[in-house]
Amino acid sequence: MTKATGEFDLIARYFTRPARRAVLGVGDDCALLQPAPGMQIAVSSDMLVEGRHFFADVSAQALGHKALAVNLSDLAACGATPMAFTLALALPGVDESWLQAFSDGLWALAETHGCELVGGDTTQGPLNICITVLGQVPRGQALLRSGAQVGDDIYVSGTLGDPRLALEALQGKLSLPPALMAAARARLELPTPRVALGQALRGVASAAIDISDGLAGDLGHILKASRVGATLDTEIAISLIAASTHWAGNTAIISAENRLKYVLSGGDDYELAFTAPVSARQAVDAAAKLSQTAVTRLGRIEKEPGLRLMDAQGHSVPQTFSSFDHFG
Amino acid sequence: MTKATGEFDLIARYFTRPARRAVLGVGDDCALLQPAPGMQIAVSSDMLVEGRHFFADVSAQALGHKALAVNLSDLAACGATPMAFTLALALPGVDESWLQAFSDGLWALAETHGCELVGGDTTQGPLNICITVLGQVPRGQALLRSGAQVGDDIYVSGTLGDPRLALEALQGKLSLPPALMAAARARLELPTPRVALGQALRGVASAAIDISDGLAGDLGHILKASRVGATLDTEIAISLIAASTHWAGNTAIISAENRLKYVLSGGDDYELAFTAPVSARQAVDAAAKLSQTAVTRLGRIEKEPGLRLMDAQGHSVPQTFSSFDHFG
Repeated sequence: MTKATGEFDLIARYFTRPARRAVLGVGDDCALLQPAPGMQIAVSSDMLVEGRHFFADVSAQALGHKALAVNLSDLAACGATPMAFTLALALPGVDESWLQAFSDGLWALAETHGCELVGGDTTQGPLNICITVLGQVPRGQALLRSGAQVGDDIYVSGTLGDPRLALEALQGKLSLPPALMAAARARLELPTPRVALGQALRGVASAAIDISDGLAGDLGHILKASRVGATLDTEIAISLIAASTHWAGNTAIISAENRLKYVLSGGDDYELAFTAPVSARQAVDAAAKLSQTAVTRLGRIEKEPGLRLMDAQGHSVPQTFSSFDHFG
Repeated sequence: MTKATGEFDLIARYFTRPARRAVLGVGDDCALLQPAPGMQIAVSSDMLVEGRHFFADVSAQALGHKALAVNLSDLAACGATPMAFTLALALPGVDESWLQAFSDGLWALAETHGCELVGGDTTQGPLNICITVLGQVPRGQALLRSGAQVGDDIYVSGTLGDPRLALEALQGKLSLPPALMAAARARLELPTPRVALGQALRGVASAAIDISDGLAGDLGHILKASRVGATLDTEIAISLIAASTHWAGNTAIISAENRLKYVLSGGDDYELAFTAPVSARQAVDAAAKLSQTAVTRLGRIEKEPGLRLMDAQGHSVPQTFSSFDHFG
């Protein structure tokens, strides 16, 4: 490969734009950020690997979107306002059309959230995308996993289970009508980080997490960190996958049991699960309206440890949960 | 693989220690950091890939050290004080003795610099180590590449070229006496980030960069960003590789021309190259003493663009430079 397609040129061509909010962006040893007075810095890193987090044939534009989206989702879960991100990228070689599409997807989402690319690294190696995102949140106001209280309501944003549905279809385990497949695949490949909702929930939610490994597993992290338990309503949970626009009329394809499984342990949803006191129901509704994000109340925090399921008749539903584990 | 060696357990076992300086460390969606009043945040990411940045048989402990060292070196070049880092790690599988040694090397260097591991990600995939480091620096005092002025002196810290010497020996291109090989290999595998020197140079140096791709290439970034040129003294440059403790008596192994090449374009040195006004010579000496880091003055910033070499007799030395490029 010639020098003309070398590392520095790649950075300049695809990953450099003038800093607008950062004090100093791409092009020095470090980027410099100036947090506003009274703010804490929220930071999170996620690494995406081919064959584990995405298929080799995924659209590069969707991959650019998703690589940033999963990181923004962590900021959302803390109620932080995105500031900046770094991108470290290992590429098997220089494929300019791939880089153009990847950076298009990345920039589009970054600009939506005013989140600047301020630095990073490119190298040759098996495809690997590592993004670190930085946000700011007023001191002491970050949403944590540890704040859930007995009696709190449990909510989730948006819909759950569609990404897993798409994954099973892509793996040939089931067949979906085209419109449903397209809708489910869009949810898998182009997740929407709930950044505005997370910010609107500051001072309202008692605890929050983003759902990357399935509702049961991730809610489990809240329960463990808060030293509480919970009961979820399975009818409402099942309805969350049915909420997909194109699902209507297709419910016979997947059994209710499997729908519940996709919702509870599907993974890759990037919705927020959060808790809030009963007294905050109006405030939660207001946060949902302000952020134009649907939220659904589907359970209650209880003193007894563990996660329990209950049907509409109030009967206990037996279930074995497992959260998605990249070494599982 | 069983759940007992799953992602969450790995994080808990090898990469979690209680947060001491961070507001919130490993274990929530984001870590939270509280910069001191008046401070800017410096951030940098580096990705290390097997076969490109290290050999498959490198000691895991050395690799843990180096992965953090190359990032701390970027903070050093900005004069920033390390605060925290995130670690994203792709591993082919779970090898506990490797993880123990890797984390030992990582923690030892992290503790030396009071730099806390606050978050990250582990996943299965071809070995890849991505670290993002965060530091703080008083507003407006970061050392940048763009501040060099005509007439400034040019300095480098420590010694240069030994890592490249070790690399050539490891690749079988030359043979070194055992003591020299051990010293050179230690410089390749266990670089010392010049963090204390970088901080001591705030308000003293006019520009700085860390030398990861060779002195000529990295000084070239200062020249380009500052829109100036420079002349270096080749005799002093050659002496920098001879400065290695174990080099004495072995100068016949490598020609002076090759020694100059290793110094100017060897790569992997992680020393600082910096500029300072002639009036700051005493202040530079004081910064070197304070940080217990040797510095050598070896050139001058000039108005004419480009990098020139001059021998002890004042004659121009022709040289083709190339900086190390991961796609070159």
